[in-house]
Amino acid sequence: MPAYGEVMGRLLEELGKLPGIGPKSAERLANYILGSSREDVLVLVQALRDVKEKLRRCSCCFNVGESDPCHICADPRRDRSTICVVEQARDVPVIERTGAYRGLYHVLGGRLAPLEGVGPEQLTITQLTTRVKEGTVTEVVVATNPTVEGETTALHLAEALKPLGVTVTRLARGMSAGGSLEYASAAVVGDALRDRRPL
Amino acid sequence: MPAYGEVMGRLLEELGKLPGIGPKSAERLANYILGSSREDVLVLVQALRDVKEKLRRCSCCFNVGESDPCHICADPRRDRSTICVVEQARDVPVIERTGAYRGLYHVLGGRLAPLEGVGPEQLTITQLTTRVKEGTVTEVVVATNPTVEGETTALHLAEALKPLGVTVTRLARGMSAGGSLEYASAAVVGDALRDRRPL
Repeated sequence: MPAYGEVMGRLLEELGKLPGIGPKSAERLANYILGSSREDVLVLVQALRDVKEKLRRCSCCFNVGESDPCHICADPRRDRSTICVVEQARDVPVIERTGAYRGLYHVLGGRLAPLEGVGPEQLTITQLTTRVKEGTVTEVVVATNPTVEGETTALHLAEALKPLGVTVTRLARGMSAGGSLEYASAAVVGDALRDRRPL
Repeated sequence: MPAYGEVMGRLLEELGKLPGIGPKSAERLANYILGSSREDVLVLVQALRDVKEKLRRCSCCFNVGESDPCHICADPRRDRSTICVVEQARDVPVIERTGAYRGLYHVLGGRLAPLEGVGPEQLTITQLTTRVKEGTVTEVVVATNPTVEGETTALHLAEALKPLGVTVTRLARGMSAGGSLEYASAAVVGDALRDRRPL
């Protein structure tokens, strides 16, 4: 006989599908839900539903937002001469939190990975070149991940965008703030040396 | 400007209330939800709702179940001469999984903690003595946690139940299966010595 009934068993199964939630965490969460008030659970349920029902893709930058155009594209205070290109919508908050960027975004929807069948047509690269061709953009900051696929995508973007007369830059690679040379990998220190800047 | 909009912000807030889910995990889960199909999220939502809407307390043992009496109390194959007393409904699956127990349960709903205002009246102790008085029970296995409050509760139960003519036992304390003396604490080894059994 299973230790849990059908209703708890189904919740355990669904929670166990979430990333980073193993059987023990699922049990802990399910027991917390069991002990929570009906109101608290309904608030969580509504928040989950809202994410699926109220969010949409911005038709300009393909970021996920509550409106179209998204709040960033619609914000008159943003610098319209710069576009930061990221792989996924989840990368936008990472850049936003730095407070170091005031331009617009463009979400590619992934990175080039020919072995997985992801070519330029699967990404929003055509839409990006269309935005650049409109003429207000002077710099495209490529913020794809520092992985093999991310770098390949960055090079592909540079090739596609440079003929349009815009500056194409990429995020600097080097030492992590707060890190130490002693524990940094050779690849990281090598990047930091190559990208060294005058003091 | 916050990095997330209102809808994602609310989900992050609600997920962050769950035990063991910090801001980073909440963000990871929220992004997973964002990328999941609407159907998958609705299945999770339904599983969450069902736990609040379909589960009830068993009026006999106070375990949580889909029926009243619960599937354990209603099971004719269970040994009705033994009741295992646990603090919380979440402890029942822990005992069930051992496969070493075939009797009934009684969920106290907590443990005695006078400083927190939890006295015998806040627990289901009266209902337990009523069950024992019915006469079919010969042994009560006290499976409260091996903490100060759990032990106090166990002693209180022993005092209340022994006059009714039943055997009151408690879970053994000792070495953990697979553990080693080298890393066991003095309290654990002390328990193991006191509870030693003939080979």
